[in-house]
Amino acid sequence: MRAVTGARELQDRMVAWRRDLHQRPELGFCEFQTASYVLDAVEGLPVRVFRGAEAQDISRVYSRNEARLATFAERALEAGIDPEQVERFRREGTGLVVEVGAGNGPLVGIRVDMDALPVLEADGNHLPAREGFRSRYDGVMHACGHDGHTAIGLGVITALSRFADQLPGRVRVFFQPAEEGTMGGGASMVALPLVGELDAVIPIHIGLGVPSGKVASAVRYMATTKFRVRFKGHGAHVTAEPQAGANALLAAAAAAQQLHGLPPHSEGWYSLNVGTLHAGDEQGITPPWAVMELGIWADKQSVNDFLVGRVKEVVEACAAAQACSVTIEVFGKAPSAVPDATLAEVIDEVAGELALSPLPPMLCKAGEDATEFVNAVQAHGGVGTMIIIGSEIAAGHHQPHFDFDERVLADGAALLAKTAVRLISQSR
Amino acid sequence: MRAVTGARELQDRMVAWRRDLHQRPELGFCEFQTASYVLDAVEGLPVRVFRGAEAQDISRVYSRNEARLATFAERALEAGIDPEQVERFRREGTGLVVEVGAGNGPLVGIRVDMDALPVLEADGNHLPAREGFRSRYDGVMHACGHDGHTAIGLGVITALSRFADQLPGRVRVFFQPAEEGTMGGGASMVALPLVGELDAVIPIHIGLGVPSGKVASAVRYMATTKFRVRFKGHGAHVTAEPQAGANALLAAAAAAQQLHGLPPHSEGWYSLNVGTLHAGDEQGITPPWAVMELGIWADKQSVNDFLVGRVKEVVEACAAAQACSVTIEVFGKAPSAVPDATLAEVIDEVAGELALSPLPPMLCKAGEDATEFVNAVQAHGGVGTMIIIGSEIAAGHHQPHFDFDERVLADGAALLAKTAVRLISQSR
Amino acid sequence: MRAVTGARELQDRMVAWRRDLHQRPELGFCEFQTASYVLDAVEGLPVRVFRGAEAQDISRVYSRNEARLATFAERALEAGIDPEQVERFRREGTGLVVEVGAGNGPLVGIRVDMDALPVLEADGNHLPAREGFRSRYDGVMHACGHDGHTAIGLGVITALSRFADQLPGRVRVFFQPAEEGTMGGGASMVALPLVGELDAVIPIHIGLGVPSGKVASAVRYMATTKFRVRFKGHGAHVTAEPQAGANALLAAAAAAQQLHGLPPHSEGWYSLNVGTLHAGDEQGITPPWAVMELGIWADKQSVNDFLVGRVKEVVEACAAAQACSVTIEVFGKAPSAVPDATLAEVIDEVAGELALSPLPPMLCKAGEDATEFVNAVQAHGGVGTMIIIGSEIAAGHHQPHFDFDERVLADGAALLAKTAVRLISQSR
Amino acid sequence: MRAVTGARELQDRMVAWRRDLHQRPELGFCEFQTASYVLDAVEGLPVRVFRGAEAQDISRVYSRNEARLATFAERALEAGIDPEQVERFRREGTGLVVEVGAGNGPLVGIRVDMDALPVLEADGNHLPAREGFRSRYDGVMHACGHDGHTAIGLGVITALSRFADQLPGRVRVFFQPAEEGTMGGGASMVALPLVGELDAVIPIHIGLGVPSGKVASAVRYMATTKFRVRFKGHGAHVTAEPQAGANALLAAAAAAQQLHGLPPHSEGWYSLNVGTLHAGDEQGITPPWAVMELGIWADKQSVNDFLVGRVKEVVEACAAAQACSVTIEVFGKAPSAVPDATLAEVIDEVAGELALSPLPPMLCKAGEDATEFVNAVQAHGGVGTMIIIGSEIAAGHHQPHFDFDERVLADGAALLAKTAVRLISQSR
Repeated sequence: MRAVTGARELQDRMVAWRRDLHQRPELGFCEFQTASYVLDAVEGLPVRVFRGAEAQDISRVYSRNEARLATFAERALEAGIDPEQVERFRREGTGLVVEVGAGNGPLVGIRVDMDALPVLEADGNHLPAREGFRSRYDGVMHACGHDGHTAIGLGVITALSRFADQLPGRVRVFFQPAEEGTMGGGASMVALPLVGELDAVIPIHIGLGVPSGKVASAVRYMATTKFRVRFKGHGAHVTAEPQAGANALLAAAAAAQQLHGLPPHSEGWYSLNVGTLHAGDEQGITPPWAVMELGIWADKQSVNDFLVGRVKEVVEACAAAQACSVTIEVFGKAPSAVPDATLAEVIDEVAGELALSPLPPMLCKAGEDATEFVNAVQAHGGVGTMIIIGSEIAAGHHQPHFDFDERVLADGAALLAKTAVRLISQSR
Repeated sequence: MRAVTGARELQDRMVAWRRDLHQRPELGFCEFQTASYVLDAVEGLPVRVFRGAEAQDISRVYSRNEARLATFAERALEAGIDPEQVERFRREGTGLVVEVGAGNGPLVGIRVDMDALPVLEADGNHLPAREGFRSRYDGVMHACGHDGHTAIGLGVITALSRFADQLPGRVRVFFQPAEEGTMGGGASMVALPLVGELDAVIPIHIGLGVPSGKVASAVRYMATTKFRVRFKGHGAHVTAEPQAGANALLAAAAAAQQLHGLPPHSEGWYSLNVGTLHAGDEQGITPPWAVMELGIWADKQSVNDFLVGRVKEVVEACAAAQACSVTIEVFGKAPSAVPDATLAEVIDEVAGELALSPLPPMLCKAGEDATEFVNAVQAHGGVGTMIIIGSEIAAGHHQPHFDFDERVLADGAALLAKTAVRLISQSR
Repeated sequence: MRAVTGARELQDRMVAWRRDLHQRPELGFCEFQTASYVLDAVEGLPVRVFRGAEAQDISRVYSRNEARLATFAERALEAGIDPEQVERFRREGTGLVVEVGAGNGPLVGIRVDMDALPVLEADGNHLPAREGFRSRYDGVMHACGHDGHTAIGLGVITALSRFADQLPGRVRVFFQPAEEGTMGGGASMVALPLVGELDAVIPIHIGLGVPSGKVASAVRYMATTKFRVRFKGHGAHVTAEPQAGANALLAAAAAAQQLHGLPPHSEGWYSLNVGTLHAGDEQGITPPWAVMELGIWADKQSVNDFLVGRVKEVVEACAAAQACSVTIEVFGKAPSAVPDATLAEVIDEVAGELALSPLPPMLCKAGEDATEFVNAVQAHGGVGTMIIIGSEIAAGHHQPHFDFDERVLADGAALLAKTAVRLISQSR
Repeated sequence: MRAVTGARELQDRMVAWRRDLHQRPELGFCEFQTASYVLDAVEGLPVRVFRGAEAQDISRVYSRNEARLATFAERALEAGIDPEQVERFRREGTGLVVEVGAGNGPLVGIRVDMDALPVLEADGNHLPAREGFRSRYDGVMHACGHDGHTAIGLGVITALSRFADQLPGRVRVFFQPAEEGTMGGGASMVALPLVGELDAVIPIHIGLGVPSGKVASAVRYMATTKFRVRFKGHGAHVTAEPQAGANALLAAAAAAQQLHGLPPHSEGWYSLNVGTLHAGDEQGITPPWAVMELGIWADKQSVNDFLVGRVKEVVEACAAAQACSVTIEVFGKAPSAVPDATLAEVIDEVAGELALSPLPPMLCKAGEDATEFVNAVQAHGGVGTMIIIGSEIAAGHHQPHFDFDERVLADGAALLAKTAVRLISQSR
C-alpha cells in the first residue's frame, strides 16, 4: 500500500475503502472478504496484526449459523480470497486487531464493527446505486454504516502509522465481527487480554440520529437478550385421538401472551417482543412443535437480568401446561455499560478543537455490544465510553435506502486519532 | 303413626309428607329437620332404623360447609327438633337407613335423597305457593324433587311394613344426604357394609325429562368432578414495584383459557366449565389471590379421569408461569355406572303390570351420585340400576317454578314396593 | 387396449394399473399423468368419456395451488404426456367421467378419486419398494390408496364394457381430482348435471380400518371446513415506538387459544385444530403479519356450520383487539351426508353373494368429499351411499409405510360391477 | 371559637383538630362530620365560607356510591350533625371553601383534602390507639394523612385570620372531598370559578416518602384512569347446550391478558393493572357475567390518553370474541400537571427561612387530583405547584399502622401561611 501523505488524500482513501466494502457486505461472523480487505489495507504499514484465535475466542460467541458461514465462505472464494485464510477465519473468527505505536505509555483501544444486514439494498434513487457501489449481493446490505466504521478504523491506523515510532504508547483498533443481533462478536473479542489490558477504549458508531458535525461522547445502550424457544409436543390425529396430543402451538401462544403481559419494572423502561412464531405442519395433527424468537431491551442491566429469569419461568410453565418440553437458547445478548465522564470530557475537548459540537450524555434505545469493550476495560481499571459521530442519514438504519454523509469518515478518523494521541500523551 | 291401610290412603299420606317436607328444605348435609321427619314418620312401624355413624361414614364426604351446618342446625332447633338429635346428625351425618322385613332371602336397597337447593322459590302462580306449602326459608327450595323422593321412600316402607313379617327377605331404604353438587353424600353411605351387602339396589329420581306414566329403568349419568382452585400470588404496588408482584388473576385467567382449550376426547363427549372466578382486591395492587371453581362432566369415567389429570397439570403450570402457588380441592364428584340389564328387565316387567311404559336405556347429561350405590353393590357381586320415574314438571329442575306431578309419588312407591317384593321372592 | 376376457385377467390388469399409478403420484388438481393414464386405459372400449369442462366446473373449487400445478405439469410433459392435453387439464380440470352402457334404464354412478399426498414414501422393507413400484417422485406418495381406487374404477369400466350393449341402463365412473384436503375436487364435479341426473351413486374408499373381506355399505364421514386466516398488523420498532405497532402474532395467539376454547356442542362431537401458525420477521419489530390454518371436523353438519360462524366471530374480534385486520379464506370443505339404507341393503346383498361380510352403519372420523356426490344425487331424488371396501393396511393412512392388500381391487371391482348391474336391472 | 393567639397555641390546636378528625374518618363524598367540623372550627373567624353548590359542581364527579352515602349520613346524624346540613352536603357535596382577607391584591389558593380510606386501623402498638384517638369506625381509617391536611388547612386560616384586614389580597383554602380513588372530588371543585380565578394555587400532601424537615415544592403526579368493565354474556347449561352460552368469564380473562400485554410506550413509563375480576355463579352454567376493575398510571398525560383508547378497543373486541356485550365505566381519573418553577422557587425561599430543606423537582408515582387545581389555575393564566411537606411515617400510606409525625402540622401551616402572604405581597 502506497503511503498516505496528507489529510485530503486520507479522506479520499477512506471514501474509496468504504465504497469497496459497501459492495461486498457480509453477515455476522462471515466477514471473510471484509477482514481480508482490512488485512490488505494495512499491509506494509508499521503495525502489528492479530487475527483468528489471536484476536478472539470464537467459543464465546452466542450463536453462529453454519449454513450462512458456508454461503459466505463460498462467496469469498469466488471473490478470490485465499482459501487457507477463509478456512482460518471460519474456524477461528473473522475479527482482527491492528496495533500501531510501540511506546510503553498508555494503551488505547478503538472498536469498529464490520458486519452487514439481511436487507435488499434500494436501487434507483439511492446514492450507492447512482454512484455504482451498490451491494453485489442481493439481500445483504451495509444498512447500518459498519462499512463506514471499518473505513474509519483503517483511517485511524493509517494516520497514526505515519508517526508510529513517535507515539509514546499504543493504539489498538478492534475490527469486530457480528455486532448486529448481538450474537457475540464483542464477547468473543473481550475474552482475550488484548481488550482487558487497555487503559481506555472507545467503541464508535455513526449516525443513530446524531446530526453531522455533532459528537455524542457518552452514549448508553440498552441491555439486551435474545432468546430462541423451542417447544416440543406430540402430534396426535385430531379426530382419532385428540387427547393424546401435546399442543406446542398453544404452549407458544400462551407463552407469547404471558411474556408480553409481564409487568413494567420500576427501575427502568424496557421492551420485550416475541418477534417470530412458527408452529405446526398440518391441520389434522396437533402441532407437535413451535419455535419462537424474542428479544428484551432494557435501559438497566438489572431490569434485563430480572426479565431473563422471568422469561425462563414463563416459558417452562407454559410448556408444562400443554405437556410439552422446551429448550431455551440465548442466541444473542449485550450488556449495558456506563460511560466514563472523564474520558468523555477528553473527547469533547478534542471535538471542540475540530469544530465538532459535543452533545450531553444520551441513551440510544438499542442494544450494541460496544458495551462489552467498555465493561471489560473498566473491569480491569481502565476507562471507556461509547460514542456516536454525527451524520445525516438518507433513511433509517436497517432500511433499504439507508446511507450516510461520507464526511463523517474524516470527522471520525480525525477525532479518534487526535483523541488517541492525547490520551497516550497524558500521564495516567 | 297411625297405620296406613290402603293404597288411596297411602297416596294421600305421601302427598302430605311431600308437602310438609317441601316447606322445610335443607341444603346438603344439613337435613336435620328432614331426617327427623323421616324418623317420626316410621316411628311405630316394624322397621329397623340406622342413623348417624350406623348409616354413614361422614369422614368420606368431599366437602361440608361449617357455616351452613350452623345455620341449618339453628333452624332445626327453632323448629323444635331435639337438640341432642341435631347434634348427633351434625357430628355423624343426617343420612338414615330404614330396613323392613326379616327373612333370610335377598336384600334389596332403594335409595332416595333428601337435600334441597339454594334457590328462591317462586311465589304467585306456582302450585306450592297457591296451595300453601311454599318453602319457609327464602333462598332454599326443593327445586329438584327430592321432597318427592323422600316421600316415595316413606311410602315404600309404609307399604311393605304392612306385611313385614311375611317378606322372605329384607328391603333397605337409604335416605341420603347431599346429592346436589355431588359433595359426597352417597360416598359416605356406600362406605358402610349396609350397601355392599345388598343383592340389588335401585336409586331413583323423578322427572328429568321423563314424562308422567313412563319409567326409564336403565339410566346412565355422567361422571363428574368439581374443583376449587386457589391461586396465591403476591400483591405489589403496581407503580412502586410492579415487578415484585405475582399475579394470581393472570394465572387464573390463563388457566381458565387453557382448561377450556383442552382437546375433545375420542372416547366420549365431555363438557368442562370454569363456572366462577374471583380475584383481587384493588386496582393499585397486583392481585395476590384468585379462586376459581370448575366442573367436568363426561359420559365416560375414563374421560373424566383423564381430564382430572390434565386439570391438575394445567392449573399448576399456569400458577408457576406467574410465580404463584396453587391448591386444588376436589369438593365434589360422582362416578358413572353401568346399569344391569337384568334388573332393568324386572323393573320393566313390573312397570308394565302397573300400566307404566318402560323406556329404553338412556343417558342423563348430569352427574348423580346414585351411581355410587350401583357401583358399590356391583363390586360385591350384586346388581343395580339407576331409574327415573316419569313426571311432568312445571319448570326445569333447579328453577324457581319447578314443580312435579304428585301422581308420581304413587307410581314410584307402587313400582318400587312391587319390584322389591318380586326381587325378594326370586330365587337368586 | 386388448380386451380383457376373464376375471383372473382383469385382476392382474388391475394390479398392474395400480402399480403403474403408484409410481406416478400427483397432488390434488395436478393429476395430469393419472388422468392421461385413465384415458389410455379406456381407449378402444365402448365407453363415452367426458373430460375437462365436460366433467367439472373448475370455478367451483375452493383452492388450487398455481405453483404446484406448474411443477406437476412440468413432470407430465417430461413423462411424455401430450402438451395440449396437459394444458387443457390445467385449464379445465383433471377430472374425468367414463360412461358405459346405453339403455334408457337407471343411471348409476361410482366415484373414485385419483390424487396422492405430500408424503415421502418409505424405502426398504415396504412392498412397493421391494416390488419396484415405489413413487418416482420423492415427497409425493399414494399413501391413501387412491391408486387402488382408480384401478378399481378402471376395473368396473372394463368388466361392464364387455357386455355394454346389453346393459339396460348406464354406469358412470367419476374419476375425481383432489379429494385430499377437501379442496373442492368433488364440488367441481357435482356442479355438472352428470352427477345430479344419477339415480344412484356409490363413492368408494378402501381400507380405513375395515379389514379384508368386509364391506361397510353405509358410511358417514365428518363435515369439515378448513380455514386460512391472515392477520395484518403494523410493524413498529419495539424500542423506538412500540405503541405504534399492531401485533399480528398476539392477535393470532389469542385467536388460537380462543378457538380451542370454544365449548363442546350438545348435538355432536367435533374437533377443531389450529394446525399451523406463522408470524413475524424479526425480534426488533412488532410482528406485522400472522397466518394460521385451522380445520373443523364435526359428526353433524349443523355442528360444523355453527362453528364456521363462531370461527369468524372469534378471529375478527381477536384481530380487532390488536388493531389488526384479518382475512379468512375457506380453502377446503366437505359436507356430511346420510347414506340411503335401501341402497346399502342392495350392496350388502351383493356383498354376501361375493362372500364379503357386510358391516353395520359406521362413522369414519374424517372428512371426505365423497359426500358431495351423495348429497347432489339425493337432492335430485336419487339415492347414494358412501362405502368402504375392506383391506388390511401395512401402516396407517397418510404414513410412509402405508400399503394395502391388492386383493381389494378384485373385491371392489366385482362388488361395484355387480351392484351396478343389479341396480340397473331393478325397476325403480 | 376562642381566638388563637400564638404559634405554640396554634400548634396544639392543630394537633387537637387532627386527632378529633382522626376519630371520625369518612370515605369520599361522605365527609359529613368532617365538613361540619371545619365549619365549626372557622365559626366566628373573619372569613367567608362557601359550601355545597357554592363550592363545587357535584354533577362533575366520576362516581359516587349511594349506599355509602347513606351509611355515612346515618353516622353523621347519630353523631349529632344537623340533619338539614347533612342533607345539603349529600345533595350538593361536602367540599368547602374558606376565604380570608379582603384586599384587591393577588388571590392565592391552598387545597387540602378530607377523605379517609376503607382500612381497618391497627390497634395496640399504634400511636392513635395508645393515645386514644383511634378511628371510631372499624374499617374506615385516615391512613393517608388527610386528617393532617385538614388540620393544616384550618391552621392556615386561623393564622391568617388574625390579621385578615391587613392582607392586601385573599387566601382561599379548598377543603376537597374524595381524593382517594380520584373519583372526581377535585374535578367537582375546579368546575367553579373560585378556582379558575386564583392567581396561584398550592395543593398539599404530607409524607409520601419525604422526610420530616424537608419540602418538595415541585411535585408531579401520574395521570391516572380507573375503569370498571362489565361483560354480559349468556348462561347456558354446560351439558345441555354448552354452545348456546356466551362466556363472560373467558371474555374477561382474555381481556385481562391482552390489557397486560399492551406494549410499553416510548414517551413514558406506565403501569396498567387489572386489579379485580369477578365472574359467574355456578359451575354448571356458562358464566353469564364478569366485572373487572383496572387502573392506568402514566407519567405522561399523552400516554394515559393513548392507553384509554387501547383499553376500549381491547375490551370491546374481547367481548365480541365471546359474543358478549360490554360496558366500560370510567369511575375515577386524574390528570398529570406541570408545576410552575417560579412558584416553587418562592416556596423554597420561604422553606429556607423556616429551616425546612427544599428538595428538587420529583415525580410521585401515584395519581392525585391535586393536579386538577394546578391545571385549572394555569388554564386561566395563574400559576400552581403540587407540594409535599415532609414527615416520617410509621408505616406505608394506606396501611393499618400508618401514622405521621404531628410536627408536620406546624411546618405545613407556617410554610403555607407565610408563602401565601409573600405571594399576596408580591406585585404580580
